Amino acid sequence: MTIERTRSRRALIGLAAAAAVVAGIATAQAADDPANLIKYRGMVMSAMGAHIGSIASVVKGEVSYGPHVAAHARALHATSLMLTDIFPEGSDMGETRAKPEIWQEWDKFEGLIKDLNAQAEKLAQVAEGGDMAAIGAQLGETGKACGNCHKPYRKEKE
Amino acid sequence: MTIERTRSRRALIGLAAAAAVVAGIATAQAADDPANLIKYRGMVMSAMGAHIGSIASVVKGEVSYGPHVAAHARALHATSLMLTDIFPEGSDMGETRAKPEIWQEWDKFEGLIKDLNAQAEKLAQVAEGGDMAAIGAQLGETGKACGNCHKPYRKEKE
Repeated sequence: MTIERTRSRRALIGLAAAAAVVAGIATAQAADDPANLIKYRGMVMSAMGAHIGSIASVVKGEVSYGPHVAAHARALHATSLMLTDIFPEGSDMGETRAKPEIWQEWDKFEGLIKDLNAQAEKLAQVAEGGDMAAIGAQLGETGKACGNCHKPYRKEKE
Repeated sequence: MTIERTRSRRALIGLAAAAAVVAGIATAQAADDPANLIKYRGMVMSAMGAHIGSIASVVKGEVSYGPHVAAHARALHATSLMLTDIFPEGSDMGETRAKPEIWQEWDKFEGLIKDLNAQAEKLAQVAEGGDMAAIGAQLGETGKACGNCHKPYRKEKE
């Protein structure tokens, strides 16, 4: 990427951030370079995928690590609470599958994140009990909440 | 993989597990299919990598998500506590970079994991304080503890 293009991107992001502030949208981290933001967001998503995938492996009986489930669920919930922060305006520019509709429909998007937060919190609570059938049921609800954002707001892999 | 080969693998794992029990080595999960174990271990490692990478991004100033660091560090520590469980005897067979030396030198390996557990716990404590310089220093110690296992016990990528 040329310096000029980076500058022009940054200017755009600055404008987007300013517009968002006027519109009252939270954009605390919009000043970060989008490439770094996107890399960080990828790591947060990867952590969530790894924790939920680990729980699924136990629930499906692929591995017998029942005692790990509660810690994975707590980590999943804690990580899910970062989601509203990591989609600042302008961070759909670059190597990302995030669709521009996220910012066009921010309230809806944010509502779906809050639903995921609630489902993941419930999963963490249920996981403490160790009842694998109940954990499996709540894992399903949590997975649905993930999909509720991924379906409308994430581009297909190219 | 043929059924016969899977059976012969399982028999080998059974023997290894029996030998390990005789030798007094913890092999609680050795009955799990190695392919599932390896998949699960990959997810645990991926979660740890994502959490430590996220902390590093904040410490390096790439992103301004300081308030996320403590949650990443807690998740990293909790996940690191799973490490001694996820290397049962026989789980170096298949698509894994784990070297057989892990089981030949189990006490040394386990000692290095416990050191990582302690460093990650300290990172979680330091992260609560929010002092970015202190977090960066302790992140370095934690990263070293990761490397202390990765260097001798993980095969190079092919």
